[in-house]
Amino acid sequence: MIKVGVLGARGRMGAEVCRAVEGAADMELVAAVDQGDDLAALTGAEAVVDFTNPGVVMDNLRWCVEHGLHAVVGTSGFDPARLDTVRGWQAANPGGNVLIAPNFGVGAVLMMHFAQKAAPFFDSVEVVETHHPNKLDAPSGTAYRTAELIAAARAEAGTGPSPDATTTELDGARGTDVGGVRVHAIRMAGAIAHQEVILGGHGEIFTLRHDSMNRESFMPGVLLGVRKVADLPDRLTVGIESLLGL
Amino acid sequence: MIKVGVLGARGRMGAEVCRAVEGAADMELVAAVDQGDDLAALTGAEAVVDFTNPGVVMDNLRWCVEHGLHAVVGTSGFDPARLDTVRGWQAANPGGNVLIAPNFGVGAVLMMHFAQKAAPFFDSVEVVETHHPNKLDAPSGTAYRTAELIAAARAEAGTGPSPDATTTELDGARGTDVGGVRVHAIRMAGAIAHQEVILGGHGEIFTLRHDSMNRESFMPGVLLGVRKVADLPDRLTVGIESLLGL
Amino acid sequence: MIKVGVLGARGRMGAEVCRAVEGAADMELVAAVDQGDDLAALTGAEAVVDFTNPGVVMDNLRWCVEHGLHAVVGTSGFDPARLDTVRGWQAANPGGNVLIAPNFGVGAVLMMHFAQKAAPFFDSVEVVETHHPNKLDAPSGTAYRTAELIAAARAEAGTGPSPDATTTELDGARGTDVGGVRVHAIRMAGAIAHQEVILGGHGEIFTLRHDSMNRESFMPGVLLGVRKVADLPDRLTVGIESLLGL
Amino acid sequence: MIKVGVLGARGRMGAEVCRAVEGAADMELVAAVDQGDDLAALTGAEAVVDFTNPGVVMDNLRWCVEHGLHAVVGTSGFDPARLDTVRGWQAANPGGNVLIAPNFGVGAVLMMHFAQKAAPFFDSVEVVETHHPNKLDAPSGTAYRTAELIAAARAEAGTGPSPDATTTELDGARGTDVGGVRVHAIRMAGAIAHQEVILGGHGEIFTLRHDSMNRESFMPGVLLGVRKVADLPDRLTVGIESLLGL
Repeated sequence: MIKVGVLGARGRMGAEVCRAVEGAADMELVAAVDQGDDLAALTGAEAVVDFTNPGVVMDNLRWCVEHGLHAVVGTSGFDPARLDTVRGWQAANPGGNVLIAPNFGVGAVLMMHFAQKAAPFFDSVEVVETHHPNKLDAPSGTAYRTAELIAAARAEAGTGPSPDATTTELDGARGTDVGGVRVHAIRMAGAIAHQEVILGGHGEIFTLRHDSMNRESFMPGVLLGVRKVADLPDRLTVGIESLLGL
Repeated sequence: MIKVGVLGARGRMGAEVCRAVEGAADMELVAAVDQGDDLAALTGAEAVVDFTNPGVVMDNLRWCVEHGLHAVVGTSGFDPARLDTVRGWQAANPGGNVLIAPNFGVGAVLMMHFAQKAAPFFDSVEVVETHHPNKLDAPSGTAYRTAELIAAARAEAGTGPSPDATTTELDGARGTDVGGVRVHAIRMAGAIAHQEVILGGHGEIFTLRHDSMNRESFMPGVLLGVRKVADLPDRLTVGIESLLGL
Repeated sequence: MIKVGVLGARGRMGAEVCRAVEGAADMELVAAVDQGDDLAALTGAEAVVDFTNPGVVMDNLRWCVEHGLHAVVGTSGFDPARLDTVRGWQAANPGGNVLIAPNFGVGAVLMMHFAQKAAPFFDSVEVVETHHPNKLDAPSGTAYRTAELIAAARAEAGTGPSPDATTTELDGARGTDVGGVRVHAIRMAGAIAHQEVILGGHGEIFTLRHDSMNRESFMPGVLLGVRKVADLPDRLTVGIESLLGL
Repeated sequence: MIKVGVLGARGRMGAEVCRAVEGAADMELVAAVDQGDDLAALTGAEAVVDFTNPGVVMDNLRWCVEHGLHAVVGTSGFDPARLDTVRGWQAANPGGNVLIAPNFGVGAVLMMHFAQKAAPFFDSVEVVETHHPNKLDAPSGTAYRTAELIAAARAEAGTGPSPDATTTELDGARGTDVGGVRVHAIRMAGAIAHQEVILGGHGEIFTLRHDSMNRESFMPGVLLGVRKVADLPDRLTVGIESLLGL
């Protein structure tokens, strides 16, 4: 049984984490902490999950590292300076591994990883994402990041640009160009969050598709982090990709 | 047995038509005519299929109408003036029905028809087409036409615009706008000709998809035209839609 | 403003209907009635929506018809005898149109209609449905019904059987056979209710796909029924297909 | 410039290989050999591609190894005994690496690899393959092999069975069971060779799809083999997976 504390336990994501921990056969929820609660309630936990906000997460992390608790962090806002600060705390204290992930969705992470691996072997690659019509940005951050990773993988492998003989284009028809990778954003009532990476060449097309129906889909990644954080090879790990045995 | 003559018989499409007619149990190929051959070879045919070019098709059609032969025409370039000219010939001669279709692909025609029918019942609609990377125009003519038909159907039914809260867009990410319908064009090695119409609303998404692998896919529509041209209610018919019993 | 009453208003579907009516700009919810409430509360409504159960729906309908109220019914259990009983009440009373639909999902109804229309024009047709893994029956009732309708449409048009050269088959690989149409059922965590009808022939494939995310997807069909029930050409109508202008 | 010889050069696949080698900027076709030709024509080649038949491939391979030529082999029929024989020849001769692959399709190999990697992270997994209606076996060999690999990966990771509450099933609706993985085979006019691996869990679905339009799709894998065979870490390599840097 892994003893787990949750920070931000009354927030939307934190409450999901509490439910997921309680539903996991190999975990025990020992502390559900939120704004106004004393961090000392976390004493006795082996791993702490933090879904709070950028304003308080550094204080939370410092406390965890200084008390030798492992931390799994879904809160956003980590830049290189913040990561260095965390490493400094770790250098001064034994114990206290930290896993910080911008995306705990296993499916999304697999898609990005597989897209990078496959990208050098195909002539063409494009990304199509579909989201509900209330989304403010186009394309999605995940689609943009996926295209960047694909472009980098192709550059490293020396793959040429995707062929495209278009001479007459209605404005925007070919999508937006992210490092040479065309990205298309669909906004659709009834949709939630979906993404396709389409790769093609020499009489074959290879498609990776991810459909995310709700935020529940982040929980398996969070639980995986909780299970593995104590044994990670580095004291500070960014992203869950290295936990997936790829 | 329907006796069939083919005009443009040595061209790419005409040769396909000859093979398709020969393979049809209810048809007999009685004349395969091309540039330099005498049209009189068509005498004895009941229906003539014309896949020639805009420069000669009017002379061909006049001959057919004046000789009482029904004609099924896949050659392009028919504007209202040309259609009026054909009607004039028909008024002066008994017999000689004419079916002119810009697209004999049954699947493509069904997609356009169904898209129009479904469009008023959904909040959102977008079109995504995928073609081989040697295509010069984006989006495809079929995708553009589909979007126009959808827009017209929604306007007639009083359907509002597709919802879209996008405030931050990388240039082109949301595709091109055809009468309020967003259209996205993918260019992909390994692809041939593919189109999706995606409709969404209230917790459901409805998708029409058409994959065309080769020009063979036009033959069932041509043969359908040959079978029905003699019995069409109008002497001049444009498009195969009315032959499909929709 | 259409004045609407809801029967079964505290049930899962009825509560959704109440919310949908309240959210519709052209409707007013004048009565929300459930078990134990007096039907007289419906007086003043123009149309009544019934999502109750087979045990009480006939009494409800009789009351509506006798009081001249139009009824839109999603309750199941209507066999020919029950339909005849309803017609008898209508013959004895002026006013009181009745629309009974086993499925108010516009997308699902469109898919079945389009599948029937397209089925005669393709050599092959198969149905693939995907549902959450808690579903007890395979295939789904909708998939079975779709296959039956396709088989009937092909029989009527004289279309031959789908070609299939399989001589070596692992048990079940080719799905189940519903009137000559192969149907495949996928059970998938993360899925809700999805169906594809795939039609193919001569170098082209045509696919109809419907994804249903939640029961919300029935509300547009219910509201359409409420708007049209007063003007239906027949006093008793079964299914919403005839309301869709297809 | 890699000097390449082709064995079986007048066969269907061998002729494709000749064309592909001639089209590759970094290769030179120095010998196109078939039945009746002297193997000595291969002298001067650095790598030899063999698409012949099980009856002659061993003699070809022996000649190549004894003459220090690297070989890339797409001919089928290699069992463990044959592989041992090849290793024996290699032990007695310096030079002469051998790459034998049952499938040179990069997309198909990537799909199998990614499916194995992803399989432990999802509750459910099923395989759906679609082929032209002239195919004799169902499911396809690739689908069967994919399901076996998925089943093995899940067993090794300790993943439980895919959930399935089905209590009422029409015969075959749930597909065939390959090691606990359901496999569905669609036979469709207009289709060529297509496969989907669908994985689902906790509000998300992840899909890998491969569409193969023609045998051209094997050529990039063959050329990759030609480029890498000289530098492979083992003298005998089976499958191209290890060449893909996964």
